[in-house]
Amino acid sequence: MQAIIASTSTIHGSSYLEYLLPTLETHFADVEDILFIPFARSGGITHDDYTEKAKKGLKPCGKNVRGLHEFKDPKKAIASAEAIFVGGGNTFLLVKQLHELGLMDVLRTAIDAGAPYLGTSAGSNIFGLTMQTTNDMPIVYPPSFKTLGLLDFNINAHYKDPDLKSTHKGETRETRIKEFQNLNSVIVVGLREGSWLKVSDSKITLENNFSARIFEPGQLAYEIDPNAILNFN
Amino acid sequence: MQAIIASTSTIHGSSYLEYLLPTLETHFADVEDILFIPFARSGGITHDDYTEKAKKGLKPCGKNVRGLHEFKDPKKAIASAEAIFVGGGNTFLLVKQLHELGLMDVLRTAIDAGAPYLGTSAGSNIFGLTMQTTNDMPIVYPPSFKTLGLLDFNINAHYKDPDLKSTHKGETRETRIKEFQNLNSVIVVGLREGSWLKVSDSKITLENNFSARIFEPGQLAYEIDPNAILNFN
Repeated sequence: MQAIIASTSTIHGSSYLEYLLPTLETHFADVEDILFIPFARSGGITHDDYTEKAKKGLKPCGKNVRGLHEFKDPKKAIASAEAIFVGGGNTFLLVKQLHELGLMDVLRTAIDAGAPYLGTSAGSNIFGLTMQTTNDMPIVYPPSFKTLGLLDFNINAHYKDPDLKSTHKGETRETRIKEFQNLNSVIVVGLREGSWLKVSDSKITLENNFSARIFEPGQLAYEIDPNAILNFN
Repeated sequence: MQAIIASTSTIHGSSYLEYLLPTLETHFADVEDILFIPFARSGGITHDDYTEKAKKGLKPCGKNVRGLHEFKDPKKAIASAEAIFVGGGNTFLLVKQLHELGLMDVLRTAIDAGAPYLGTSAGSNIFGLTMQTTNDMPIVYPPSFKTLGLLDFNINAHYKDPDLKSTHKGETRETRIKEFQNLNSVIVVGLREGSWLKVSDSKITLENNFSARIFEPGQLAYEIDPNAILNFN
Protein backbone atom coordinates (compact mmCIF):
# COMPACT_ATOMS: atom_id res chain seq x y z
CA MET A 1 0.00 0.00 0.00
CA GLN A 2 1.33 3.39 -1.06
CA ALA A 3 -0.64 6.49 -0.11
CA ILE A 4 -0.31 10.23 0.38
CA ILE A 5 -2.93 11.42 2.87
CA ALA A 6 -2.93 15.21 2.73
CA SER A 7 -4.73 17.62 5.04
CA THR A 8 -5.60 19.97 2.18
CA SER A 9 -5.31 20.15 -1.62
CA THR A 10 -4.23 23.77 -1.56
CA ILE A 11 -2.18 25.91 0.77
CA HIS A 12 -2.45 29.67 1.11
CA GLY A 13 -0.75 31.59 -1.70
CA SER A 14 -0.24 28.58 -3.95
CA SER A 15 -2.28 26.86 -6.66
CA TYR A 16 -4.25 23.57 -6.49
CA LEU A 17 -1.90 20.68 -5.49
CA GLU A 18 1.18 22.84 -6.19
CA TYR A 19 2.89 22.22 -2.83
CA LEU A 20 2.47 18.44 -3.30
CA LEU A 21 3.91 18.21 -6.83
CA PRO A 22 7.49 17.11 -5.99
CA THR A 23 6.05 14.36 -3.78
CA LEU A 24 3.48 13.30 -6.37
CA GLU A 25 6.11 12.98 -9.11
CA THR A 26 7.77 10.27 -7.07
CA HIS A 27 4.51 8.80 -5.78
CA PHE A 28 3.04 8.39 -9.27
CA ALA A 29 6.40 7.71 -11.02
CA ASP A 30 5.43 4.24 -12.26
CA VAL A 31 1.93 5.00 -13.52
CA GLU A 32 0.53 6.69 -16.62
CA ASP A 33 -3.16 6.94 -15.77
CA ILE A 34 -4.76 8.32 -12.63
CA LEU A 35 -8.43 7.76 -11.79
CA PHE A 36 -9.94 10.82 -10.12
CA ILE A 37 -13.00 10.47 -7.86
CA PRO A 38 -14.81 13.84 -7.85
CA PHE A 39 -17.79 12.80 -5.68
CA ALA A 40 -17.05 15.01 -2.65
CA ARG A 41 -17.68 18.22 -4.52
CA SER A 42 -21.07 19.79 -3.96
CA GLY A 43 -20.21 23.41 -4.53
CA GLY A 44 -21.92 24.20 -7.79
CA ILE A 45 -19.17 22.76 -10.01
CA THR A 46 -19.79 19.66 -12.06
CA HIS A 47 -17.84 16.43 -11.90
CA ASP A 48 -16.40 17.39 -15.30
CA ASP A 49 -15.20 20.77 -14.02
CA TYR A 50 -13.72 19.24 -10.89
CA THR A 51 -11.93 16.58 -12.93
CA GLU A 52 -10.59 19.32 -15.20
CA LYS A 53 -9.20 21.05 -12.12
CA ALA A 54 -7.48 17.84 -10.98
CA LYS A 55 -6.10 17.33 -14.50
CA LYS A 56 -4.67 20.86 -14.52
CA GLY A 57 -3.22 20.48 -11.03
CA LEU A 58 -1.50 17.22 -11.95
CA LYS A 59 -0.37 18.39 -15.40
CA PRO A 60 3.27 18.99 -14.37
CA CYS A 61 3.47 15.26 -13.52
CA GLY A 62 2.52 14.44 -17.13
CA LYS A 63 -0.19 11.88 -16.32
CA ASN A 64 -3.54 11.10 -17.88
CA VAL A 65 -6.39 11.89 -15.49
CA ARG A 66 -9.94 10.60 -15.94
CA GLY A 67 -12.95 11.15 -13.71
CA LEU A 68 -14.76 8.12 -12.28
CA HIS A 69 -18.08 9.57 -13.51
CA GLU A 70 -16.87 9.09 -17.10
CA PHE A 71 -16.91 5.30 -16.74
CA LYS A 72 -19.99 3.13 -17.31
CA ASP A 73 -18.88 0.62 -14.69
CA PRO A 74 -17.33 2.46 -11.75
CA LYS A 75 -16.47 -0.77 -9.90
CA LYS A 76 -14.49 -2.01 -12.87
CA ALA A 77 -12.84 1.38 -13.30
CA ILE A 78 -11.60 1.34 -9.71
CA ALA A 79 -10.57 -2.32 -9.80
CA SER A 80 -8.45 -1.74 -12.88
CA ALA A 81 -7.09 1.71 -11.95
CA GLU A 82 -3.33 2.19 -12.02
CA ALA A 83 -3.55 4.97 -9.42
CA ILE A 84 -6.38 6.74 -7.57
CA PHE A 85 -6.92 10.31 -6.40
CA VAL A 86 -9.93 11.22 -4.22
CA GLY A 87 -10.40 14.98 -4.00
CA GLY A 88 -11.87 17.09 -1.22
CA GLY A 89 -15.26 18.68 -0.68
CA ASN A 90 -17.95 17.36 1.64
CA THR A 91 -17.17 14.06 3.36
CA PHE A 92 -20.86 13.16 3.92
CA LEU A 93 -21.51 13.50 0.19
CA LEU A 94 -18.44 11.46 -0.74
CA VAL A 95 -19.15 8.65 1.74
CA LYS A 96 -22.85 8.47 0.78
CA GLN A 97 -22.02 7.93 -2.87
CA LEU A 98 -19.21 5.44 -2.23
CA HIS A 99 -21.55 3.35 -0.07
CA GLU A 100 -24.59 3.63 -2.33
CA LEU A 101 -22.63 2.68 -5.43
CA GLY A 102 -21.00 -0.19 -3.52
CA LEU A 103 -17.52 1.22 -4.11
CA MET A 104 -16.03 1.22 -0.61
CA ASP A 105 -14.84 -2.41 -0.75
CA VAL A 106 -13.53 -2.28 -4.29
CA LEU A 107 -11.62 0.90 -3.47
CA ARG A 108 -10.08 -0.69 -0.37
CA THR A 109 -9.09 -3.77 -2.37
CA ALA A 110 -7.49 -1.74 -5.20
CA ILE A 111 -5.41 0.31 -2.75
CA ASP A 112 -4.46 -2.78 -0.75
CA ALA A 113 -3.32 -4.42 -3.98
CA GLY A 114 -0.90 -1.56 -4.59
CA ALA A 115 -2.56 1.20 -6.65
CA PRO A 116 -0.86 4.40 -5.40
CA TYR A 117 -3.47 6.56 -3.65
CA LEU A 118 -3.70 10.30 -3.14
CA GLY A 119 -6.30 11.76 -0.78
CA THR A 120 -6.85 15.40 0.02
CA SER A 121 -9.18 16.60 2.78
CA ALA A 122 -12.38 14.49 2.43
CA GLY A 123 -10.32 12.04 0.36
CA SER A 124 -8.01 11.71 3.36
CA ASN A 125 -10.78 11.42 5.93
CA ILE A 126 -12.08 8.27 4.23
CA PHE A 127 -8.71 6.51 4.66
CA GLY A 128 -9.37 6.19 8.42
CA LEU A 129 -11.77 3.94 10.31
CA THR A 130 -14.78 6.26 10.13
CA MET A 131 -15.69 9.72 8.85
CA GLN A 132 -16.73 10.77 12.34
CA THR A 133 -13.95 13.31 12.79
CA THR A 134 -14.78 15.31 9.68
CA ASN A 135 -15.35 19.06 10.03
CA ASP A 136 -18.02 19.02 7.32
CA MET A 137 -21.70 19.78 7.58
CA PRO A 138 -24.11 16.80 7.30
CA ILE A 139 -25.63 18.05 4.03
CA VAL A 140 -26.71 14.52 3.05
CA TYR A 141 -27.43 11.35 5.07
CA PRO A 142 -24.99 8.53 4.29
CA PRO A 143 -26.04 4.91 4.96
CA SER A 144 -23.05 4.52 7.31
CA PHE A 145 -20.18 6.58 8.72
CA LYS A 146 -17.71 3.70 8.15
CA THR A 147 -14.93 4.38 5.70
CA LEU A 148 -11.98 2.50 4.16
CA GLY A 149 -10.26 1.59 7.43
CA LEU A 150 -6.86 1.46 5.74
CA LEU A 151 -5.46 3.27 8.77
CA ASP A 152 -6.20 2.03 12.28
CA PHE A 153 -7.04 5.57 13.41
CA ASN A 154 -9.11 8.53 12.21
CA ILE A 155 -7.95 11.68 10.43
CA ASN A 156 -8.98 15.21 11.27
CA ALA A 157 -8.03 17.19 8.17
CA HIS A 158 -7.50 20.98 8.24
CA TYR A 159 -6.63 20.64 11.94
CA LYS A 160 -6.85 24.05 13.57
CA ASP A 161 -5.46 25.16 16.91
CA PRO A 162 -7.82 26.94 19.29
CA ASP A 163 -7.83 30.72 18.88
CA LEU A 164 -6.94 31.74 22.42
CA LYS A 165 -8.17 35.28 21.85
CA SER A 166 -11.60 34.22 20.60
CA THR A 167 -14.75 35.06 22.58
CA HIS A 168 -16.80 32.66 20.42
CA LYS A 169 -18.59 29.94 22.40
CA GLY A 170 -18.78 27.30 19.66
CA GLU A 171 -16.65 24.24 20.48
CA THR A 172 -12.97 24.24 19.49
CA ARG A 173 -11.67 21.46 17.25
CA GLU A 174 -9.91 19.87 20.21
CA THR A 175 -13.15 19.87 22.25
CA ARG A 176 -15.03 18.23 19.38
CA ILE A 177 -12.41 15.49 19.01
CA LYS A 178 -12.54 14.82 22.76
CA GLU A 179 -16.35 14.59 22.58
CA PHE A 180 -15.88 11.98 19.84
CA GLN A 181 -13.48 10.06 22.07
CA ASN A 182 -15.88 10.12 25.02
CA LEU A 183 -17.99 7.76 22.93
CA ASN A 184 -15.50 6.09 20.57
CA SER A 185 -12.19 4.50 21.51
CA VAL A 186 -10.39 5.60 18.34
CA ILE A 187 -7.10 7.50 17.96
CA VAL A 188 -7.37 10.74 15.97
CA VAL A 189 -4.53 12.40 14.06
CA GLY A 190 -5.03 16.15 13.65
CA LEU A 191 -3.25 17.01 10.39
CA ARG A 192 -2.42 20.68 9.95
CA GLU A 193 -2.74 22.22 6.48
CA GLY A 194 0.46 21.65 4.53
CA SER A 195 1.10 18.28 6.23
CA TRP A 196 0.53 14.84 4.86
CA LEU A 197 0.98 11.26 5.93
CA LYS A 198 3.10 9.07 3.69
CA VAL A 199 1.83 5.51 4.00
CA SER A 200 4.23 2.86 2.73
CA ASP A 201 2.78 -0.53 3.63
CA SER A 202 2.73 -0.51 7.43
CA LYS A 203 5.14 2.44 7.78
CA ILE A 204 3.45 5.82 8.20
CA THR A 205 5.45 9.06 8.40
CA LEU A 206 4.38 12.66 8.93
CA GLU A 207 5.72 14.77 6.07
CA ASN A 208 6.53 18.46 5.53
CA ASN A 209 7.30 21.13 8.09
CA PHE A 210 4.45 20.95 10.56
CA SER A 211 3.91 18.96 13.71
CA ALA A 212 0.64 16.98 14.03
CA ARG A 213 -1.62 16.78 17.05
CA ILE A 214 -2.34 13.29 18.33
CA PHE A 215 -5.41 12.40 20.36
CA GLU A 216 -5.29 9.04 22.09
CA PRO A 217 -8.43 8.16 24.07
CA GLY A 218 -7.99 8.87 27.76
CA GLN A 219 -4.69 10.73 27.32
CA LEU A 220 -3.70 14.36 27.00
CA ALA A 221 -3.28 15.40 23.37
CA TYR A 222 0.34 15.69 22.26
CA GLU A 223 2.41 16.81 19.28
CA ILE A 224 4.57 14.73 17.00
CA ASP A 225 7.39 16.28 14.98
CA PRO A 226 7.75 16.41 11.21
CA ASN A 227 9.26 13.17 9.86
CA ALA A 228 8.05 11.24 12.89
CA ILE A 229 6.94 7.67 12.32
CA LEU A 230 3.39 7.06 13.53
CA ASN A 231 3.18 3.99 15.69
CA PHE A 232 0.41 3.54 18.20
CA ASN A 233 1.00 -0.09 19.15
CA MET B 1 -46.56 27.63 20.57
CA GLN B 2 -44.17 29.71 22.69
CA ALA B 3 -40.45 29.21 22.22
CA ILE B 4 -37.10 30.88 22.76
CA ILE B 5 -34.59 29.56 20.25
CA ALA B 6 -31.18 30.81 21.35
CA SER B 7 -27.90 30.57 19.45
CA THR B 8 -25.93 29.84 22.62
CA SER B 9 -26.52 29.19 26.33
CA THR B 10 -23.66 31.42 27.39
CA ILE B 11 -22.12 34.59 26.07
CA HIS B 12 -18.54 35.71 26.67
CA GLY B 13 -17.94 37.17 30.12
CA SER B 14 -21.27 36.03 31.57
CA SER B 15 -22.49 32.90 33.36
CA TYR B 16 -24.68 30.07 32.02
CA LEU B 17 -28.03 31.46 30.73
CA GLU B 18 -27.38 34.81 32.48
CA TYR B 19 -28.03 37.02 29.44
CA LEU B 20 -31.38 35.26 28.85
CA LEU B 21 -32.75 35.56 32.40
CA PRO B 22 -34.98 38.64 31.95
CA THR B 23 -36.52 36.99 28.89
CA LEU B 24 -36.95 33.64 30.64
CA GLU B 25 -38.71 35.19 33.62
CA THR B 26 -41.47 36.32 31.27
CA HIS B 27 -41.32 33.20 29.10
CA PHE B 28 -41.72 30.84 32.06
CA ALA B 29 -43.93 33.20 34.14
CA ASP B 30 -46.90 30.83 34.25
CA VAL B 31 -45.08 27.59 35.03
CA GLU B 32 -43.55 26.11 38.17
CA ASP B 33 -41.75 23.06 36.78
CA ILE B 34 -39.35 22.88 33.88
CA LEU B 35 -38.31 19.58 32.29
CA PHE B 36 -34.66 19.67 31.21
CA ILE B 37 -33.41 17.37 28.44
CA PRO B 38 -29.65 16.86 28.97
CA PHE B 39 -29.08 14.37 26.13
CA ALA B 40 -26.84 16.56 23.95
CA ARG B 41 -24.01 16.60 26.44
CA SER B 42 -21.17 14.19 25.71
CA GLY B 43 -18.35 16.04 27.33
CA GLY B 44 -17.50 13.93 30.33
CA ILE B 45 -20.26 15.35 32.54
CA THR B 46 -23.19 13.21 33.60
CA HIS B 47 -26.85 13.94 32.97
CA ASP B 48 -27.11 14.70 36.70
CA ASP B 49 -24.29 17.26 36.55
CA TYR B 50 -25.71 18.89 33.45
CA THR B 51 -29.17 19.09 35.01
CA GLU B 52 -27.58 20.65 38.12
CA LYS B 53 -26.03 23.28 35.86
CA ALA B 54 -29.41 24.05 34.26
CA LYS B 55 -31.00 24.23 37.71
CA LYS B 56 -28.36 26.69 38.90
CA GLY B 57 -28.65 28.79 35.72
CA LEU B 58 -32.45 29.00 36.08
CA LYS B 59 -32.40 29.54 39.85
CA PRO B 60 -33.09 33.30 39.67
CA CYS B 61 -36.39 32.45 37.93
CA GLY B 62 -37.39 30.38 40.98
CA LYS B 63 -38.53 27.27 39.09
CA ASN B 64 -38.21 23.56 39.78
CA VAL B 65 -35.99 21.88 37.22
CA ARG B 66 -35.85 18.10 36.70
CA GLY B 67 -33.83 16.14 34.19
CA LEU B 68 -35.62 13.84 31.73
CA HIS B 69 -33.23 11.01 32.69
CA GLU B 70 -34.77 11.02 36.21
CA PHE B 71 -38.12 9.80 34.88
CA LYS B 72 -38.97 6.14 34.34
CA ASP B 73 -41.23 6.96 31.42
CA PRO B 74 -39.65 9.74 29.34
CA LYS B 75 -42.60 9.90 26.91
CA LYS B 76 -45.01 10.52 29.76
CA ALA B 77 -42.64 13.06 31.33
CA ILE B 78 -42.54 15.07 28.12
CA ALA B 79 -46.27 14.76 27.45
CA SER B 80 -47.09 16.09 30.90
CA ALA B 81 -44.33 18.72 31.13
CA GLU B 82 -45.36 22.26 31.98
CA ALA B 83 -42.31 23.67 30.18
CA ILE B 84 -39.30 22.19 28.37
CA PHE B 85 -35.64 23.20 28.08
CA VAL B 86 -33.30 21.34 25.73
CA GLY B 87 -29.66 22.23 26.39
CA GLY B 88 -26.71 22.32 24.01
CA GLY B 89 -23.87 19.92 23.33
CA ASN B 90 -23.62 17.64 20.33
CA THR B 91 -26.61 17.67 17.97
CA PHE B 92 -25.91 14.17 16.57
CA LEU B 93 -26.00 12.74 20.08
CA LEU B 94 -29.20 14.59 20.98
CA VAL B 95 -31.02 13.63 17.79
CA LYS B 96 -29.93 9.98 18.00
CA GLN B 97 -31.37 9.61 21.49
CA LEU B 98 -34.60 11.49 20.73
CA HIS B 99 -35.22 9.21 17.73
CA GLU B 100 -34.18 5.97 19.40
CA LEU B 101 -36.33 6.64 22.47
CA GLY B 102 -39.23 7.62 20.20
CA LEU B 103 -39.40 11.11 21.73
CA MET B 104 -39.37 13.35 18.66
CA ASP B 105 -43.14 13.17 18.06
CA VAL B 106 -44.15 13.50 21.69
CA LEU B 107 -41.85 16.51 22.06
CA ARG B 108 -43.36 18.17 18.99
CA THR B 109 -46.88 17.51 20.28
CA ALA B 110 -46.13 18.93 23.75
CA ILE B 111 -44.66 22.13 22.32
CA ASP B 112 -47.49 22.45 19.79
CA ALA B 113 -49.96 22.11 22.64
CA GLY B 114 -48.40 25.11 24.37
CA ALA B 115 -45.62 24.01 26.75
CA PRO B 116 -43.16 26.95 26.69
CA TYR B 117 -39.90 25.77 25.12
CA LEU B 118 -36.34 26.95 25.53
CA GLY B 119 -33.62 25.68 23.22
CA THR B 120 -29.95 26.62 23.28
CA SER B 121 -27.49 25.62 20.56
CA ALA B 122 -28.24 21.91 19.79
CA GLY B 123 -31.62 22.43 21.49
CA SER B 124 -32.30 25.19 18.97
CA ASN B 125 -31.03 23.23 15.96
CA ILE B 126 -33.68 20.56 16.55
CA PHE B 127 -36.49 23.12 16.29
CA GLY B 128 -35.88 23.39 12.53
CA LEU B 129 -36.67 20.95 9.72
CA THR B 130 -33.44 18.95 9.96
CA MET B 131 -30.18 18.96 11.91
CA GLN B 132 -28.23 19.26 8.66
CA THR B 133 -26.92 22.76 9.38
CA THR B 134 -25.32 21.87 12.71
CA ASN B 135 -21.64 22.71 13.23
CA ASP B 136 -21.12 19.60 15.33
CA MET B 137 -18.97 16.57 14.64
CA PRO B 138 -20.77 13.31 13.71
CA ILE B 139 -19.62 11.53 16.88
CA VAL B 140 -22.58 9.10 16.72
CA TYR B 141 -24.82 7.91 13.86
CA PRO B 142 -28.47 8.97 14.30
CA PRO B 143 -31.21 6.96 12.56
CA SER B 144 -32.31 10.14 10.76
CA PHE B 145 -31.30 13.80 10.44
CA LYS B 146 -34.97 14.91 10.68
CA THR B 147 -35.85 17.04 13.67
CA LEU B 148 -38.95 18.68 15.16
CA GLY B 149 -39.87 20.79 12.13
CA LEU B 150 -41.59 23.38 14.29
CA LEU B 151 -39.97 26.05 12.12
CA ASP B 152 -40.20 25.85 8.34
CA PHE B 153 -36.49 26.58 8.03
CA ASN B 154 -33.21 25.38 9.56
CA ILE B 155 -31.11 27.03 12.25
CA ASN B 156 -27.37 27.51 12.17
CA ALA B 157 -26.47 28.24 15.79
CA HIS B 158 -23.24 30.02 16.79
CA TYR B 159 -23.24 31.64 13.35
CA LYS B 160 -19.78 33.00 12.62
CA ASP B 161 -18.74 35.48 9.97
CA PRO B 162 -15.80 34.56 7.74
CA ASP B 163 -12.44 35.72 9.09
CA LEU B 164 -11.25 37.77 6.12
CA LYS B 165 -7.66 37.71 7.35
CA SER B 166 -7.52 33.93 7.68
CA THR B 167 -5.19 31.86 5.48
CA HIS B 168 -6.96 28.64 6.58
CA LYS B 169 -8.39 26.61 3.69
CA GLY B 170 -11.19 24.84 5.57
CA GLU B 171 -14.64 25.95 4.39
CA THR B 172 -16.23 29.05 5.97
CA ARG B 173 -19.64 28.71 7.63
CA GLU B 174 -21.25 30.52 4.70
CA THR B 175 -19.65 28.12 2.20
CA ARG B 176 -20.90 25.12 4.18
CA ILE B 177 -24.46 26.47 4.28
CA LYS B 178 -24.35 27.09 0.53
CA GLU B 179 -23.14 23.52 -0.02
CA PHE B 180 -26.15 22.36 1.99
CA GLN B 181 -28.43 24.45 -0.20
CA ASN B 182 -26.94 23.06 -3.41
CA LEU B 183 -28.62 19.82 -2.38
CA ASN B 184 -31.51 20.91 -0.14
CA SER B 185 -34.06 23.62 -0.86
CA VAL B 186 -34.31 24.81 2.75
CA ILE B 187 -33.93 28.32 4.18
CA VAL B 188 -31.22 28.67 6.84
CA VAL B 189 -31.15 31.30 9.58
CA GLY B 190 -27.62 32.01 10.84
CA LEU B 191 -28.11 33.09 14.48
CA ARG B 192 -25.17 34.96 15.98
CA GLU B 193 -24.25 34.29 19.61
CA GLY B 194 -26.35 36.51 21.88
CA SER B 195 -29.35 36.39 19.53
CA TRP B 196 -32.47 34.34 19.84
CA LEU B 197 -35.72 33.84 17.98
CA LYS B 198 -38.90 34.44 19.91
CA VAL B 199 -41.60 32.18 18.49
CA SER B 200 -45.12 33.13 19.45
CA ASP B 201 -47.47 30.91 17.48
CA SER B 202 -46.80 31.85 13.88
CA LYS B 203 -44.98 35.10 14.70
CA ILE B 204 -41.20 34.83 14.86
CA THR B 205 -39.00 37.77 15.86
CA LEU B 206 -35.24 38.16 16.08
CA GLU B 207 -34.34 39.34 19.58
CA ASN B 208 -31.42 41.18 21.16
CA ASN B 209 -28.84 43.45 19.54
CA PHE B 210 -27.48 41.43 16.65
CA SER B 211 -28.52 41.06 13.06
CA ALA B 212 -29.00 37.54 11.70
CA ARG B 213 -27.79 36.18 8.37
CA ILE B 214 -30.44 34.69 6.13
CA PHE B 215 -29.72 32.13 3.44
CA GLU B 216 -32.51 31.53 0.96
CA PRO B 217 -31.75 28.90 -1.69
CA GLY B 218 -30.64 30.48 -4.95
CA GLN B 219 -30.31 34.00 -3.48
CA LEU B 220 -27.45 36.03 -2.08
CA ALA B 221 -27.30 35.83 1.71
CA TYR B 222 -28.63 38.93 3.46
CA GLU B 223 -28.92 40.41 6.96
CA ILE B 224 -32.05 41.09 8.97
CA ASP B 225 -32.07 43.65 11.77
CA PRO B 226 -32.75 43.05 15.47
CA ASN B 227 -36.50 42.99 16.17
CA ALA B 228 -37.27 42.02 12.58
CA ILE B 229 -40.16 39.67 12.02
CA LEU B 230 -39.12 36.55 10.10
CA ASN B 231 -41.45 35.90 7.23
CA PHE B 232 -40.35 33.88 4.24
CA ASN B 233 -43.70 33.44 2.51
